Amino acid sequence: MTKLRFFRQYPAVDTLKKNSIVIVDERLRRLPWVRQFPVVYSVKSGEGLKDLKKFPKHFEKILKLSNNVSKRPLKIVAVGGGSVGDFAGFVASVLKRGVPLIQVPSTWLAAMDSAHGGKNALNAGGAKNQLGTICMAEQTWILQPLLDQQPAIRLEDAMGEAIKMAFLVGGPTWKKLSTILSRPQSQQNIWSVLPDLVDGKLKIVKKDPLEKKGVRHLLNLGHTLGHVFEAELGLPHGEAVFLGLQFSFHWSLQKWMMSDQEIQKILDSPIGTSLFQTQKLKASLRRLKNPARVLLNDKKRIENEKIRFIFINGIGKPKIQSVPVQQILSEIRRQSR
Amino acid sequence: MTKLRFFRQYPAVDTLKKNSIVIVDERLRRLPWVRQFPVVYSVKSGEGLKDLKKFPKHFEKILKLSNNVSKRPLKIVAVGGGSVGDFAGFVASVLKRGVPLIQVPSTWLAAMDSAHGGKNALNAGGAKNQLGTICMAEQTWILQPLLDQQPAIRLEDAMGEAIKMAFLVGGPTWKKLSTILSRPQSQQNIWSVLPDLVDGKLKIVKKDPLEKKGVRHLLNLGHTLGHVFEAELGLPHGEAVFLGLQFSFHWSLQKWMMSDQEIQKILDSPIGTSLFQTQKLKASLRRLKNPARVLLNDKKRIENEKIRFIFINGIGKPKIQSVPVQQILSEIRRQSR
Repeated sequence: MTKLRFFRQYPAVDTLKKNSIVIVDERLRRLPWVRQFPVVYSVKSGEGLKDLKKFPKHFEKILKLSNNVSKRPLKIVAVGGGSVGDFAGFVASVLKRGVPLIQVPSTWLAAMDSAHGGKNALNAGGAKNQLGTICMAEQTWILQPLLDQQPAIRLEDAMGEAIKMAFLVGGPTWKKLSTILSRPQSQQNIWSVLPDLVDGKLKIVKKDPLEKKGVRHLLNLGHTLGHVFEAELGLPHGEAVFLGLQFSFHWSLQKWMMSDQEIQKILDSPIGTSLFQTQKLKASLRRLKNPARVLLNDKKRIENEKIRFIFINGIGKPKIQSVPVQQILSEIRRQSR
Repeated sequence: MTKLRFFRQYPAVDTLKKNSIVIVDERLRRLPWVRQFPVVYSVKSGEGLKDLKKFPKHFEKILKLSNNVSKRPLKIVAVGGGSVGDFAGFVASVLKRGVPLIQVPSTWLAAMDSAHGGKNALNAGGAKNQLGTICMAEQTWILQPLLDQQPAIRLEDAMGEAIKMAFLVGGPTWKKLSTILSRPQSQQNIWSVLPDLVDGKLKIVKKDPLEKKGVRHLLNLGHTLGHVFEAELGLPHGEAVFLGLQFSFHWSLQKWMMSDQEIQKILDSPIGTSLFQTQKLKASLRRLKNPARVLLNDKKRIENEKIRFIFINGIGKPKIQSVPVQQILSEIRRQSR
């Protein structure tokens, strides 16, 4: 598995810099820590970076740069948010049939979620994440000074995945996140819960690293609708996942999947309260034009007409169930009313 | 590991055909066995198929076709020679982050070598196999009636890899291949030694599936120069590997790596005799314009100036040694005289 390291300060990179190509978000290109590396490929982050059509040009440039790296084994260091991690992760997994990868997430969302678990992806045919690999990074480095640079709005965006993870693992992580959400948000607070959230994800990944046993599908909580909101409305990932989580929660309520006691536990926390503020969810559901198109591209689709959907039985009690796409579409209509 | 199956007749595909996209060499498109599959993507085989620049278009078409496959899990069935196997193997390893692959090699060379061991690749920046994955096929099917269709010239081309494998594993495989080479070549003969050759490769692959321990590098015997001949002179892979094998053999002789006894054992077989017919090797070495360029792109390059080269201590006794590119270049000059 990946070696996970937390740093309170920028770490030294004396030996690493001789082996590495750094793939970095252009906004971080001038960071003194990055400038120590002699071979750097700077990219514009965002979904455009993940476009398969643009991949051959990127790859050929990176291949040329690899000749400037003096030491072997060649390594890729990815410095950026989710799209940079996805792109660089894919490059590392296919370059010369795979070279070691060091993920250095620069956003809270990536530090919490996407930089862990080895998934990478590119987009194709107008749909997200249609190709990629599952290939564990050699190391993931969480650099506090890098994350502290993030604007507060990015912290908001991370909350969707944070709440999802707290729902999945329950226990002390749920309580810790609830407490944090009841206070004004700050980077110090989120830093204190970050190791719990990452640990929650890695525990699930460890049980099913290659997503073959179904366990790893749990991480998809909130994502079936989340991907629809991202693709159709262009919402940021974290926000889309939060709305998807609300959708799953209200569908689970509708299906009487939670006991009164479980519902009460949820209501007792600020997370629970936020799940009932559904104005934005309703408005977003109403704006969807062709959700069926995105749902049919879903990688979790198991047969032509069915999708593995993650329901909620309670805190720390997710439940995978196969549902026909048609049922999701009629639940979208119900919740948008 | 991959399930390996030998069929004397075309096997039934009742259940498989509902799950599969067949990626097939266009020359085999009309084969009745292939025509049973409802979803088929036909390609022009050769190195052009492996060009990364053309990959996005191929991939988007395959993605569209995947919607016509009625059952899940989606599988890829690759029917063709080395280039089709490389291309389809790469597609399978990245499509939706990886779907099962069934390799059905249609050439002796692929049946003997490239369809086994999970390596796939595309070409980029004017160099071969610069990206790819190592991803074991779910199954490899060797269909005798399909191989029997091959023209005799293709059998010739397979001999380079066959002799390489016999050198690597020695023992009964060496004896069996020697006997076969002393008689007029026929498909029946090669069929009888095929399981030994495949078994030899799989034993090496099993010890080091992801090429991390060095053992798997042994399969590279004859390939360091082989790749140079392919890239610079456009020789077919099997022929290029045979010349590369001759180069390695004569370099090992020059370095006094074999005892007199070992040399005698080699000379006692028709394989040994063929190693001393070096007119074509000399001529090919003389025609090389810029071997350094290909050598420096070699995936086996470990530091800027060194390559893992496979020498021969005797039958069944390969030896990996790191040598500077400069030494290979001066040995090229020596052997071309």
